[in-house]
Amino acid sequence: MRLGLAGFGTVGQALVRLVANESERLKESLGVDLTFSVIANRGIEKKAQAAGWDLRSIRLTSDVVSLASDPEVDLVVELMGGLEPAHTLIRTALANGKGVVTANKLLLAAHGAELARLAREKGAALGLEASVAGGIPILRALRESFAGDTLVAVSGILNGTCNFILTEMEKTGRPYVDILTDAQRLGYAEADPASDVEGADAGYKLTLLSRMAFGQNVPFEGIFREGITRLLPCDFVYARQLHRALRQLATCRRLPNGRLLLSVRTHLVSEDAPLAKVTGPFNAVQVTGRSSGEFVFSGRGAGGDPTAAAVLSDVIEISRSGARRDVPPLGYASFTPFAPAGLEEFVAPFYLRFVVKDRPGIIADISRILADHAANIDVVLQAPYTDKDALPFVVTLEPVSQAQLAPAVERIGQLSFHAEPPLALPMTP
Amino acid sequence: MRLGLAGFGTVGQALVRLVANESERLKESLGVDLTFSVIANRGIEKKAQAAGWDLRSIRLTSDVVSLASDPEVDLVVELMGGLEPAHTLIRTALANGKGVVTANKLLLAAHGAELARLAREKGAALGLEASVAGGIPILRALRESFAGDTLVAVSGILNGTCNFILTEMEKTGRPYVDILTDAQRLGYAEADPASDVEGADAGYKLTLLSRMAFGQNVPFEGIFREGITRLLPCDFVYARQLHRALRQLATCRRLPNGRLLLSVRTHLVSEDAPLAKVTGPFNAVQVTGRSSGEFVFSGRGAGGDPTAAAVLSDVIEISRSGARRDVPPLGYASFTPFAPAGLEEFVAPFYLRFVVKDRPGIIADISRILADHAANIDVVLQAPYTDKDALPFVVTLEPVSQAQLAPAVERIGQLSFHAEPPLALPMTP
Repeated sequence: MRLGLAGFGTVGQALVRLVANESERLKESLGVDLTFSVIANRGIEKKAQAAGWDLRSIRLTSDVVSLASDPEVDLVVELMGGLEPAHTLIRTALANGKGVVTANKLLLAAHGAELARLAREKGAALGLEASVAGGIPILRALRESFAGDTLVAVSGILNGTCNFILTEMEKTGRPYVDILTDAQRLGYAEADPASDVEGADAGYKLTLLSRMAFGQNVPFEGIFREGITRLLPCDFVYARQLHRALRQLATCRRLPNGRLLLSVRTHLVSEDAPLAKVTGPFNAVQVTGRSSGEFVFSGRGAGGDPTAAAVLSDVIEISRSGARRDVPPLGYASFTPFAPAGLEEFVAPFYLRFVVKDRPGIIADISRILADHAANIDVVLQAPYTDKDALPFVVTLEPVSQAQLAPAVERIGQLSFHAEPPLALPMTP
Repeated sequence: MRLGLAGFGTVGQALVRLVANESERLKESLGVDLTFSVIANRGIEKKAQAAGWDLRSIRLTSDVVSLASDPEVDLVVELMGGLEPAHTLIRTALANGKGVVTANKLLLAAHGAELARLAREKGAALGLEASVAGGIPILRALRESFAGDTLVAVSGILNGTCNFILTEMEKTGRPYVDILTDAQRLGYAEADPASDVEGADAGYKLTLLSRMAFGQNVPFEGIFREGITRLLPCDFVYARQLHRALRQLATCRRLPNGRLLLSVRTHLVSEDAPLAKVTGPFNAVQVTGRSSGEFVFSGRGAGGDPTAAAVLSDVIEISRSGARRDVPPLGYASFTPFAPAGLEEFVAPFYLRFVVKDRPGIIADISRILADHAANIDVVLQAPYTDKDALPFVVTLEPVSQAQLAPAVERIGQLSFHAEPPLALPMTP
């Protein structure tokens, strides 16, 4: 099997190293023989030289899309990311009947169904395990291992950057911006962290997971998303008082009426919950089946080596099994239309955090508005903070729908006593 | 696909219910059409009647082995357990070219290689996902998802009964026998608990896991096994002082020289380790890959419904893909000979617990013998117990091999001051 690699960044380089290390074992124990015939990347020759690679036995090119019609390439491995030229490369390769392995969640969230259809039409293989949760083999599990059960929910910590920042804030009590700076220095966050901390990255992955779990044509835009940027150190103090941990969860739950509730947002998770125990730059996915109950899969969700290992497992599967006509790449041969749940169906107990300029009557004002929207207060918490101009406190609510809550929080936010905009987070078991 | 079910116990009944609940979804979304044509069990008619089943549309028989040659059976599902008649049934069915799905870990540990070879010769499918860790899809993950990485270790909590007993002892401080009685009442332990609490059950599962992870023909008898029956409430007190939890782990580690270290025994695991966080009747498997690092899969490891869901996923795979010639049922087409590590290669820091009739010089005697065997004491712990005739205390050792330790413990055990035989447990990160 002759591979054409598009993209020679962290994952691409890790893959070349991994194949060099594993090729003997693969030949001997699985009968799989892999070689790279071409590597494509803009300015690849300089890049390879700068990184000290000796790639003399492999042809190098800057023309990425040429891999799609290269007669010496049996399988295209796309590790560039982004929409173009990845989309054109993959579409053309599949149209030419070449197999493709990709880790490109953004592209698959946007064009996955089209590419899967093309792959099946052309009898070409499409491997995408590495696109979600790096090395955690969750997509294959959803497609095959859980086929015997009706799934109820898929929920996960899908962004290691967010989880690192949240668990560091929890541990150190330091503010968001400081920890973000640390994360950037440690390589856990990009120079432009928006896609991670605003929830887009987890949203792309949830798009793919929820399609495979529930067979609906879920669009990325159908996911409610809220970032982690507004969390304050006091939120971690209150969370601990409530025996809970703050975790950015990507969740998809199928309601009994068949509609899907999708969100990427920060939850207050019970400290005993499996996902509360996932700390640092790790990923975890929790799958709930009607008969089989809850499963949790956890591991390094990103990084060159784990992602390269997941890519290589896909390459091996295609090398052994070809384009499997029995199991479609996305689990379903065709999707049913997306049926999103309404905001009135998103019901949870909520945590409301306020930071106010202290004056009499604040709790009375807030309680009145909440009562107007039929939201019942459970407890009011006030930790011993002393800054009268920025006094944080928390109100927890009994289960309430997002449809009731959102206008109430908006009205409360218009009152004049806020030092920070109010923050509402769901509390989950 | 017409199924012949052998065994109508908890899992068999759960499977019949599950297929009834899921068959419409399977037909619609996966194009898989399943029916039971025969159910075989000794005294099945009475058994079905007693349990209130209406099985009039399904043929019932007490002749289990007849399924193997029944022209109305396309796929045999074996959920009886035990060696016979399960072995004869499966061997005959495969010889006749019929596919088989089984959850029988005992049989597979004894005859798995022979049955897998027969299946491949005859082009018959053999599904065995449910034989290890109930619903956790670990075997498929080892066979396919981790093919791209060289595995270093597989380690797990594979027996829910042991984990329930240990975590209850930890929580309540009550003695082993009391908790075992509770577990039996709750249905978490059998009337004869030996296979669970002595480590045989976990050993069968480890046999299968380690073969699939490392491709060696591991025999059940090659696994060092030690039960949980000698643990005392004081062990949990000392473990907590050491910031550790007691967990029965089934582990297989490949040493750099290629030899395998296999054991089922109680470890003192660091309280931060993922497996320390698995409590109650749950299972978890930790897989360590050279490139991809550590993964943990956890879920209900037993019980009718999760096991039935895993069986059904195998049935669906065979229904969709037939007998896959590309991926052997056991991951490898043939195994290399078993290369077991020696006791001198099992090196760990150890926990030694003594319960003694107090008299002067005990620590001196113990230290002298340990020094004779070149075992270095790290700390001596003595919790405030006051029974002079049964005084527990603990000595922890710096890393030492089992080969050094075993004769030292044996010599110490021959001294006259013991109220209980000494207990040695490895401590793991």
